[in-house]
Amino acid sequence: MVNVAILGFGTVGSGVAELLTQNGSLIERRVDGLVRLKYILDVRDFPDSPYRDCFVKEFSVIERDPEVDIVVETIGGATVALEYTSRALRAGKSVVSSNKELVATHGCQLLKLAREHGCSYLFEASVGGGIPILRPLTSCLAANELSQVTGILNGTTNYILTRMIRAGLTFEQALKEAQDKGYAEKDPTADVDGHDACRKICILAALAFGRQGYPGQVPTQGIRGVTLEDVAYADSAGYKIKLLGRALRQPEGKVCAFVAPHLVPGEDPLAGVEDVFNAIAVTGNAIGDVMFYGRGAGKMPTASAVVADVMDIARDLKRDRRNDWEEGDPGLVVSDDGLSSPWYVRASGSMEQARQAVGELHPLARSGAPGGEVAFLTPVMTRPALLDRLKGMQVRSLFRVLA
Amino acid sequence: MVNVAILGFGTVGSGVAELLTQNGSLIERRVDGLVRLKYILDVRDFPDSPYRDCFVKEFSVIERDPEVDIVVETIGGATVALEYTSRALRAGKSVVSSNKELVATHGCQLLKLAREHGCSYLFEASVGGGIPILRPLTSCLAANELSQVTGILNGTTNYILTRMIRAGLTFEQALKEAQDKGYAEKDPTADVDGHDACRKICILAALAFGRQGYPGQVPTQGIRGVTLEDVAYADSAGYKIKLLGRALRQPEGKVCAFVAPHLVPGEDPLAGVEDVFNAIAVTGNAIGDVMFYGRGAGKMPTASAVVADVMDIARDLKRDRRNDWEEGDPGLVVSDDGLSSPWYVRASGSMEQARQAVGELHPLARSGAPGGEVAFLTPVMTRPALLDRLKGMQVRSLFRVLA
Repeated sequence: MVNVAILGFGTVGSGVAELLTQNGSLIERRVDGLVRLKYILDVRDFPDSPYRDCFVKEFSVIERDPEVDIVVETIGGATVALEYTSRALRAGKSVVSSNKELVATHGCQLLKLAREHGCSYLFEASVGGGIPILRPLTSCLAANELSQVTGILNGTTNYILTRMIRAGLTFEQALKEAQDKGYAEKDPTADVDGHDACRKICILAALAFGRQGYPGQVPTQGIRGVTLEDVAYADSAGYKIKLLGRALRQPEGKVCAFVAPHLVPGEDPLAGVEDVFNAIAVTGNAIGDVMFYGRGAGKMPTASAVVADVMDIARDLKRDRRNDWEEGDPGLVVSDDGLSSPWYVRASGSMEQARQAVGELHPLARSGAPGGEVAFLTPVMTRPALLDRLKGMQVRSLFRVLA
Repeated sequence: MVNVAILGFGTVGSGVAELLTQNGSLIERRVDGLVRLKYILDVRDFPDSPYRDCFVKEFSVIERDPEVDIVVETIGGATVALEYTSRALRAGKSVVSSNKELVATHGCQLLKLAREHGCSYLFEASVGGGIPILRPLTSCLAANELSQVTGILNGTTNYILTRMIRAGLTFEQALKEAQDKGYAEKDPTADVDGHDACRKICILAALAFGRQGYPGQVPTQGIRGVTLEDVAYADSAGYKIKLLGRALRQPEGKVCAFVAPHLVPGEDPLAGVEDVFNAIAVTGNAIGDVMFYGRGAGKMPTASAVVADVMDIARDLKRDRRNDWEEGDPGLVVSDDGLSSPWYVRASGSMEQARQAVGELHPLARSGAPGGEVAFLTPVMTRPALLDRLKGMQVRSLFRVLA
C-alpha cells in the first residue's frame, strides 16, 4: 500500500482526490497495490467533504508520518510550496507537483534534494495540464538530441486568439468572454502577458537541454498587442496568430528561449490548435517532428497527470532518474535577437517606403484598411536588423513568423 | 555497461545501429552507463559495414552469451521472429521490438514469457513509428479509464489519400507516386488493404483495454474503394476522407475494433494530419481527448522509438510491468455493426429516392456529377439499419462519418 498526502484542496487538489477515488480500483490494479489518500492539508474546513477525515492543518503531521510515501503539492506559488516540498523531500517522501512556478524557479534545487534523499520529484502536470509531454520527452524521445521545443502553452490566450480569429472579437471582448466562461482569471496578467507560458517553456527547455533557465532570463511578450487588424492581415496570407513559447538549442550549451506572438502557417499542425487546447511540438535528430495535443488545463485533465506521476512512483518507490537537469547561469539563456526569421510588420507609411526599408517583401491586404496603413511579411532577418531598417516608419505591430 | 544484440540488419535494424553510435555519448549520459552494440544477426554479409565486427549468423551465439542484456528484434513477420524472441526471453534477455505483426498476434504470450523470466518485452516502435504512444498510454494516461483510441495508423495510405484530396490524383496514380517515392512497397497490400493499421489497432486496444484482440477478429477495410468522387463530395461538406483504426470500450469487457475509411470533420485535429504523418487520438475519463502526432514510419524515427525502449531497460534492468494484457477470446472483439454514427453514401438514384429510404439527410454536391448519381450524409444509425433502408438503391460508396 502506498499512502498519499495532498497539499492544498483547490481545483487541482480536489480533482486528484476525486480521481484517486473514482478510478481507485483501476489504479490499484495497474500499480498492483492500493494507493490510499491519507491526508489533505488545507487551512480551510471542509465539514461536508467526503474526504473530511483526511484533513489536517499542520504540515508537520504529514512530514512526521512515516506511512506517507508521496506528497502531492497543488498549493501553487513559490513560498509555502517551496518550504513544504523541500521538507517532504528531506523526509524522504517523493513529491508530485502541478506547480509550474515552483518547478520553473526552483526545479533544479528540488531535483537535487530528491536525488540526495533517494526519492522522486515529478511534475508532469506543470506543463500542458493532462497532455503527456514531460515523460515522453525524457523517456520516449531520450535517444534524440533535441533541437527545438515550440508550444502553445497557455489555454486562456489561445482561447482569446481563437475568438478574435473566428468570431472577430477584439482582445478586450474575447478576454471578457474568457473570464465569463471561467477560462481566464479576474486578474489575467499571468496568462495574457505570457508569464504562465514563460514558466512552462523554462521547464520544457530544462528537460530538453539539461540546464535550468529561469523565467526572468526569458524575453516574454503576451498578446495584448495583437489587434483584429493583425488577425485580418495574417489570415489574408493563410497564417494564424498564436502565442508560442519556444526554446532552441544554441551552440556552446546555450539556449534561446522566448515567448511571443507568432504568425503560424496554416499548414503547420500548431495552426489548427484552437480554443483552450494546448500543443507542444518537439524536434529531435532521429524522430524529426512530433506533436502532443490536448487540454492544457482544467481540474480533471490536470489531476490525470498528477495521478499518473503518483502511480509511476507507487509502482516503483525508488528514485526516478529521468527528470534531471543542472543549474543554469546568467549567460545560459540567449536573447532571440540572434534568431533570423521572416517577420510580420504593420506600420504607418506607404508600401514603397516599406520596400525601400526592407527590400523584397510580401505585401498583405485587408478590407477596410485606412490609407497610410501597410502590412507585409519581410525576408528572413534578425530583429535588430529589421528594427534598424524600419527606423523611418511608425511600426504598429511586429510579430515573428514561424518558419 | 549494457550489451545489445540486433536481430536483422534491414532498414530499422541498421537505423538502430546508427542511432546507438551517432547519439552514443548522449545515450551513455542519460542512462548513466554505456550501451554497447555487441552483435548483429543477419544471414547476409556486410564486409564494408562499420559494424562488420558485430555480425553473427547464428542466433545461438547471442542466446548463449550471458553478457547480452537486450535483444532488439527487427526481423519482422511472426515465424523466425517469434522463435528468436521466445528464446531470448527464456534466456532472461529483455526484448525490444518494432514488429507489429508479432506483437499483434503473439504479444500476450510473449509478455507472459517475459513476466515468467523476469525481463521486459517492449515495442514502442510497433505503433506510430517514432511517435511516443504506447508508453504515454500505459504511463502518463494510467489514471484514466480509457474509452476510445482512434488513429491514422498507416503513413502510406494517408499519403495516398492526401494526394487524392490535394492533387486530384486517382487512387492508382497516387499509389504509383507513393511507390516511386518509396512510401509504398511494390506489393502494397498490407498497407492499402488496411492490414498494417489492423495490427496497430490491435496493439493499441490491448494496452488501452487490457485484453488481446487478434487481427483476424477485427473487420478491416482499406482504401481501394475510395474514389475521387467521394473525395469531392466529402470536401463539399468540409470533411476529409481518412483511413482510421478505431477501438472502443464496450460493456462487459468487450471491445469494438475495426479499420475503415471515415469522413473526418475538418475541425477535428485528425483531419489536418497529412502526407505520411500518423496521429493517434485517445479519450479517457479524466484527460478528455489527447492526440499524438508525428512520423509513423521511416528508418530513424522508428529507430528513435526502439532505442528509447532500450534506454528504458538499460536504466533499470528489472522488469517493466506497464506493458501487460491478458489473453482474449473469440467473443472479445465485437463487430462495429452495433456502432451508430452518421454515414456517407454515394449511390445511383435520385435524392427523392434517398430521402424516402433514409429520411432526413444532408445532400452533397460536386461539380461534374453525372445525372442519376446522389451523395448524402445520413442521420445517426447502425450499418445494418442503413443497409436495410438502402436495399432499393445501388450503393457505390459507403463510409462512416467520425462524429
